[in-house]
Order: sequence, then C-alpha cells, then structure tokens
Amino acid sequence: MLEKRQPIPVAEAVHRVMDYAFQAKNELVPLTQAHGRFIADAIRADQDVPAFDRSPYDGYAIRSIDSQGACSQQPVRFQVVGEIGAGYVYDSVVEKGQAVRIMTGAPIPQGCDAVVMLEITHTFEENQQKYMSIKRSIEAGTNISYKGEDVQQGTILIDKGQYINPGVMALLATFGYEQVAVYRKMVIGVIATGSELLEPGECLQPGKIRNSNAYMMMAQIERAGAEVKYFGKFSDDLELCIKIVEKALQEVDILITTGGVSVGDYDYLPAIYQAMDAKVLFNKVAMRPGSVTTVAACNDKLLFGLSGNPSACYVGFELFVRPIIRTAYCHPQPHLRREQARLGADFTKPNPFTRFVRATAYYETGQLVAVPSGFDKSSAVSSLATANAFIVLPGGSRGYEKGMSVAVLLLEDLQGSEWPWDKLEKSYR
Amino acid sequence: MLEKRQPIPVAEAVHRVMDYAFQAKNELVPLTQAHGRFIADAIRADQDVPAFDRSPYDGYAIRSIDSQGACSQQPVRFQVVGEIGAGYVYDSVVEKGQAVRIMTGAPIPQGCDAVVMLEITHTFEENQQKYMSIKRSIEAGTNISYKGEDVQQGTILIDKGQYINPGVMALLATFGYEQVAVYRKMVIGVIATGSELLEPGECLQPGKIRNSNAYMMMAQIERAGAEVKYFGKFSDDLELCIKIVEKALQEVDILITTGGVSVGDYDYLPAIYQAMDAKVLFNKVAMRPGSVTTVAACNDKLLFGLSGNPSACYVGFELFVRPIIRTAYCHPQPHLRREQARLGADFTKPNPFTRFVRATAYYETGQLVAVPSGFDKSSAVSSLATANAFIVLPGGSRGYEKGMSVAVLLLEDLQGSEWPWDKLEKSYR
Repeated sequence: MLEKRQPIPVAEAVHRVMDYAFQAKNELVPLTQAHGRFIADAIRADQDVPAFDRSPYDGYAIRSIDSQGACSQQPVRFQVVGEIGAGYVYDSVVEKGQAVRIMTGAPIPQGCDAVVMLEITHTFEENQQKYMSIKRSIEAGTNISYKGEDVQQGTILIDKGQYINPGVMALLATFGYEQVAVYRKMVIGVIATGSELLEPGECLQPGKIRNSNAYMMMAQIERAGAEVKYFGKFSDDLELCIKIVEKALQEVDILITTGGVSVGDYDYLPAIYQAMDAKVLFNKVAMRPGSVTTVAACNDKLLFGLSGNPSACYVGFELFVRPIIRTAYCHPQPHLRREQARLGADFTKPNPFTRFVRATAYYETGQLVAVPSGFDKSSAVSSLATANAFIVLPGGSRGYEKGMSVAVLLLEDLQGSEWPWDKLEKSYR
Repeated sequence: MLEKRQPIPVAEAVHRVMDYAFQAKNELVPLTQAHGRFIADAIRADQDVPAFDRSPYDGYAIRSIDSQGACSQQPVRFQVVGEIGAGYVYDSVVEKGQAVRIMTGAPIPQGCDAVVMLEITHTFEENQQKYMSIKRSIEAGTNISYKGEDVQQGTILIDKGQYINPGVMALLATFGYEQVAVYRKMVIGVIATGSELLEPGECLQPGKIRNSNAYMMMAQIERAGAEVKYFGKFSDDLELCIKIVEKALQEVDILITTGGVSVGDYDYLPAIYQAMDAKVLFNKVAMRPGSVTTVAACNDKLLFGLSGNPSACYVGFELFVRPIIRTAYCHPQPHLRREQARLGADFTKPNPFTRFVRATAYYETGQLVAVPSGFDKSSAVSSLATANAFIVLPGGSRGYEKGMSVAVLLLEDLQGSEWPWDKLEKSYR
C-alpha cells in the first residue's frame, strides 16, 4: 500500500508538463472587449502615422522663408488667408507672406513648411483684413509632425501572443481593428477533494475546515487569463469520482484537483488515474511546499493533482498550470517572472528540497528586496494574502542569510519569464 | 479670444483634484465574483486557524513518551488501535503503547502529542492485530499544527480598501464569506471630441485620424478598477454638446472628454464648462505631455478634459483620474506606484516643465532600470504599447544622463503609492 515515490527536480517536472503545451484556438471579439486578452495576430500598420504632415499645436501655418529677419524691433507680418481645423483639408496653396490659422491635428496646407505657435503671435486687423505678426524667425520644419514619423505603413507593431494593454488598444483603434483576433480563453476545471471540506456558506463542524483552495484557484486561473469551471467537491465513492472526472474532462481544457494526492490510504487520485489509464508524468517533486504534486495526462489532456495545502496548491498552480495557459496564448514568457532580489531577512532552516517561500517583494531605492511574509507552514493561508512573490531557495544543507542575492518569482506581474529555471536548482543538469 | 493660462505644478493639480475625492458605496457580490474587486469591510477571523490541533502529514498519532529509547537496534512497537481521516474525529483516548493511523488534516486524537510520518514507520501484523514500529524517539509536539498557530480568532486580517487577490480569496473562503462586501465600481463616462476623428470601423479620409483615445482609456479605466460608459463623439454643435454633457453627467460618477481643451478657436470645452457653471480647478499644468489638461467640477462631479494627444491623454488619466477611482475604493495607495530607477539612456532635451517620458522599466540583477521607449512625441501611439512606466524628469534647464537616479511611475502595478509627489518637482512647496 505504501508506495515509495522518487522526487524529481522542479525544472524536470515543469519540462514534462510543458511537453503537453498546446495552442488555443482564435476568436474574434469587438475592440471594446479586447483589453486583457492575448492577441492572436500580429498588428500591422495599415497606414502611416501620422497619415499626413500635421500640426501638433494650435497656431499659424507659414512658409518659413517669409519669417527671415523677424525680431523684436522688426516684427514680420503675415496676411491671414484662411483657417483650417482638425479633420479638414485646406484646399489652396499658401503664397508668399500669407499664413493660415491652423488647429492641433490639422494637415499642413500646401506651400507651408512650419507652424508658429499661437502663443508667440500677435494678431490684428487692418482694412477688414486679418493679420498676424511674429518677432522671431522660424526654421523650416518647426512644429510639423511628419507623415510616418511615428509609424510607417506595413510595420509590424505587436507580435501575436502579446497581452492587450491600454497602449495596444490605442494601436488597434488607430489601425482600424474594429474586431480583434484573440486566443479563446482556456477553460480550467476545478474539483476539490477531501471529506474534511465545507463550503464557505456552511457552518463549522468538529474536524472540518472550509474549502479555500477552490476559491483561491479561481482567482489564480482568472489572473493567468483563463476561465474557471468549478465542479464542486468529490464524493467519497471512488466509482462516482471516476465518472465525475471523465465527464469533467470533456468540458474543460485542463482539470485540476486539489488534495487527495498523498501516499495516505484515503487519497485515491492515484486510483482514479489508474482507472482512467492516465499516464502519470510525476507524483513527487523535490520542492517545498507541494512535493506531492502529481500531474497525469489522459488523451492529451492534463490532470493536475495539486496538494490540498493552500500554499502548496498555490505554488503548484503557478509553477505548472500558469505556463500551460500562457503558452496556449503564444505568450513568449509563459512562466512567472523571475528576477534577482536581495534577501531581506535570514532564512536559516536548511532543506534538501528547493523551497518556495511566500514573500513580500519591495524596492529600496530601486533595488528589489524580498522578505518572507510571515507564517510559513504549507498549511498557512494568512501569509498568502500579503505575498506578492516567492523567494526560491535551492535545496541544500545550509540556510540563507540576509543580504544574499536570491531568485524571486513575481506573482502580480504581467510580463512573465522565458524558461526561468537555468541554474536555479543545483541538482538540475 | 486668446486666453493666457497660468501653469500650476503637477502636485498642486493633483491636490486640487483630490479635494473632490469621495468614497464609493458598497455592494455584496458572491465570493466567486470577488477577485479583482476592492474589499469594503475588514476581514475578521471567525475562528482559529487551524480550528483544532491537526496533523500536517499522513502517519501515526502517538504519545511521544512511549517512543523514548527507540533506535535501530531497539525499535519501539505500537499497537494500532484505529484510524482517523481528515474531516472525522477519533472518539477514544489513546492509551500507553497505542497509535492511531492519521491522515493529513485530521484532528490529533486525545492523549496523543506527536505524529510520526508514515515514511519512517514499519507496519506488521501479529495475531490479527496491527502494529507499527519506529527506530527513533519522537519529541512532543512533532508534526502537529496547533490550533490558532496560523490565525487567532478575532484577528483583523485584511483592512478594507485592499485589492482582492488569490490569497485574499483563500482567506475569505476560510472565514466563511459566501458573499463579500466590495466597493461598487465607479462608472466613468468617456466622450471623444474632434471633427477629425473616425471610429476604428470607418475608412480613412484625408485629414482625418481614427479615434484611439477612447479605446485606450476604456482599458485604463478597467485597469484602474472602474466601469466605462462610452458616449461616442461630440458633434460640432455647441448647444448639442452641452446637452450631451449634462445628460452624461447624470449617468456617471466622473466624465472624461478627450481633446478640445486647447486655446484654439475650435476647442469649445471651456465654453461648455462656462455654460454649465462648472468650476474650473485648473486649465494648465506644468507638465509635458498634457499641459492643457483641464479639470472642472460641476455639482461635486468632476469633468476631466484630457488632451487629445494619445500620450498626453494617457498621462492625464493615470495622474488625475486613477487616484480618484482608487480613493473611492478606500485603497491606501491610490496613486501610480512610484519607485527610484537608474536612467538607462541619456535624455538630453531640457524642458521647463516636468516631463513624463514613456519608458520600459526592467531589472538588472534586481536593480530597476528605465529607458525611454522609442518615439517620444506626445502624439505618438506606437511607444505607448510597449511602455510599462513613466520616467519623471523634473523641469529645469539641464538634460539627464544615463546612470542618474530618477523617479519612475509603474503602470502595470497593483500596489500603487501613497502621495508620491514630495520632492518630485523642484517648483513645488
């Protein structure tokens, strides 16, 4: 009954999971709903930006040559022959000594090669004719935004797989994307296991605890960019559980169970995997918390058996499920963002396994510092709420001292990392 | 017609806007929809966590005193008198020489004061009685998660105003919050102005550009945690515009217009403010881009007149609108997160006004570095997509050199800052 499990390095475990990564299908959404999605097509400029030489300010369009010699003593005057607002085109050619009143964003009239800002002009009328005068000479090209100076037609601006942020929304609108091709959201199923679990609305009973993992994971799934399908709690009947898993697998892209993966007698996920003929990729990882994390593949769909301990469950999701989701969206950096930080406090407890310590990362004059965020047993929920990073401490016989440079994984970060595991674990080739 | 405007420092402008900050109303949402909202009540522990002394591992619960003297040569045997799974309570008292098979999460039986991990036990049967033996002595308290060691009943765990992340979700579930009081989302109205604007679905025409600001701002509004109401584009008819603004103000908490705030003849937002008897808080700020940013108050509702230039519009939103939204949710750090970074490239162009330079912030071995992200005219949209920060360069007569320490405002950040403006602008008291 008691099975001896062989722990594998975290990097090897991630590697085995990522072999099953796949790409999600596309769907079109209206531009108004594109924010926060991952784009499924590169954005290509369908025009130059600006599309025409235009004025970045309110003022007067002139021929710069006409302003030569202007000074306080000898202002140069221009005859104001018209005005042109943004969105309109001035349809004559501006001649010597003439100026056109021009608004921000309006196209530069033919013949003109500079714009004088309104603030430095003086206007007056003579014989019912409008005039404008300036007291300095203006160089050619002054205050003109040239056609294509921001973006040239045909340029690829954003590659597929990028997160659509407000700036990308501006690009999409500029280049006429009324609808946007984005990756269809992955659907992630969640099943909680454990006869000790109560739902949040139930009253506490002796020996029981409320199910927190399912709700925590809903938020992790949403943060990663996917959709949740919650199937509730397993029953105590193995046959029924197998049916539930088989049915759930048909409705989701990935299925996560929490709890039930230990070597204990009551943990029958291994039995479910066996009954379903699923291939177990690993059932022990050289990490704390979460060493019992199990992943199995069934007809190309992944079944993640995460630990029932909240912190272990949290880590397991971020290390193994998140990169599968982001890879489905072609994001080039699907893993948690990895950076180096200064350890802000001693962490003396040595561990043979790689340890992921819930931490608060902050800056000291631009230097990233990370300190463990309170109570650090894998069952703790209180320190998860304040953690914004994991400190990664490779396994070994020594503890770690304040001031050492350590790797951290940033949780509330959009950017992510490419493969972040090189040299992170001593044991990994 | 040409009005002379007096620029005020950015900090003074923010200050004037923040005088109108208010608190949003509460609403109850199901726990499943709470992620990403701001909590309107402090989370209080309704129980100890753990609620009882429990086992963090699978193994055997014993009286540690019975294990004394155990070693390889002299294993100590225990009679296995029962077993207890998570969610159940063992109802007898464990006597001398007895052990109870215990699963992860199960309550420690009465009489026991330690748990032996399954992995270091040896089990066997004699005369149809189960036994377990160990080869080392166990200290009292080994492998017990004590009642209240994570959280004590009555503890305030999260203050109101905090963002609900996955860890907070776990806390809410643990403490029985089937429904959660969150701040009602602010509704932010957006109106685009400018006869040059086409919607993304329209074909390009000479002199016209597509409206990108409205879509960009939708994403900024969502990122800040509020809801968008888009009223489309202003007509060219002043009377009609006034009616639209009056009607819109009744449907939203804050109204943003983009464009139409310059000193140019065609920009009639000032006329609208006047017609509505709105109090103009300022109409010129000593900043680039966005110096023409105007804010007015009408019956305690704020009207933000942001520049029509995409970058100026972007900055204006983040500096002035975001903190109003986050303050409505009682978030203690409503402003963009401010940190110090090393300037990654020269920025030689001096400017009398405080400059917000679109930038990419990244880490070099844990040190935050920021480099301007490409083309930096206020009309540019291309560099907004890749920017994740603004470098803040106080106004003055000198440029800035690579390697200098500069303030940056982080855009894709949840944490925010308290008042970030002290000492940022030389001109500000």
